[in-house]
Amino acid sequence: MLLYDNPNSGNCYKVRLLLAHLGIACERKTIAVGDRSKRGNVLEGLNPAHRIPTLVLDDGRPIAESNAILWYLGDGTRYVPDDRYERAQVLQWLFFEQYEHEPNVAVARYWLRYRDAPVDREALAARRAGGHRALAAMEAHLSGRSWLAGDRYSIADISLYAYTHVAHEGEIELAAYPAILAWLGRVAEQPGHVTIDA
Amino acid sequence: MLLYDNPNSGNCYKVRLLLAHLGIACERKTIAVGDRSKRGNVLEGLNPAHRIPTLVLDDGRPIAESNAILWYLGDGTRYVPDDRYERAQVLQWLFFEQYEHEPNVAVARYWLRYRDAPVDREALAARRAGGHRALAAMEAHLSGRSWLAGDRYSIADISLYAYTHVAHEGEIELAAYPAILAWLGRVAEQPGHVTIDA
Repeated sequence: MLLYDNPNSGNCYKVRLLLAHLGIACERKTIAVGDRSKRGNVLEGLNPAHRIPTLVLDDGRPIAESNAILWYLGDGTRYVPDDRYERAQVLQWLFFEQYEHEPNVAVARYWLRYRDAPVDREALAARRAGGHRALAAMEAHLSGRSWLAGDRYSIADISLYAYTHVAHEGEIELAAYPAILAWLGRVAEQPGHVTIDA
Repeated sequence: MLLYDNPNSGNCYKVRLLLAHLGIACERKTIAVGDRSKRGNVLEGLNPAHRIPTLVLDDGRPIAESNAILWYLGDGTRYVPDDRYERAQVLQWLFFEQYEHEPNVAVARYWLRYRDAPVDREALAARRAGGHRALAAMEAHLSGRSWLAGDRYSIADISLYAYTHVAHEGEIELAAYPAILAWLGRVAEQPGHVTIDA
């Protein structure tokens, strides 16, 4: 398999982390983040949104969208539950991640850390506020629970770990979220864990 | 089952449309769109993001996120394929819908048609541009294909139909997308189809 990847991207890290847990080797091809004009050429025909990660299977068929890739690789393994309701809960958190969390937490980090442009502080404040709303929802859910969906570590945890554990890089501090901080620690202790810069 | 619903919401319409195809009866409880302060009370403990749709099963367990509800209801029926790769393709389009399409196409429509506030034309222009990017990606994919994923109508089509067919209500015109227009017609001809105001 070939993963169109970027070492700084949390969306790509989700896939790398699951691959590490599963012990699956995968070729990585680094694509610049943010420069969509260049990206279109490389990912044309592979990903309708021209985003990374994009996974290309050994037979050449592509899969786009980080959380769809997680489901494809994880279903049938211990990282996706069998129970119908728990599977819906995993998907619920994956969609929450892409709608409520990533557009705020990941974008704030990208603007502050990676984008070569002056930061619009008003726009940043809106993303930080949205990020804190998403984190408050996670905090409430994780209070008294070990994992986001079902009773074990799953791709829902992998997906939300990716940008939560680097939220401070977007000036979104986690000190007020003790249940999230404990959960981050549990994720990092899972067998086969790798860091974002691995 | 009980669906926390709003007749104007495309996200809720996705669920109503699949329920109609499946011939499943469901109680509907209308929740105001946009007023999150009121919503929190009703959906507290049911949906971490306090959004609609939220489905409550007969045993009281809730499912949030429109596309997670579609998967829960559709898996095991003709509306979700069995093939592993085709399932990944369905999920890819569901995540595309929530990340690239809905935040642009649905939000433009909401601002123009439902929100009781002056429209920020600059912000609207950005959403319209984002909407056209998403539609161009769909148009390219649907050129020469009948359906978004696999070779039959699926929850991927249901999900993207919901806001695409009312895109003009957000000043996003579809005239330049002949493959999308033909696909909208095919969706509306499916047995058991219901309209958004049904």
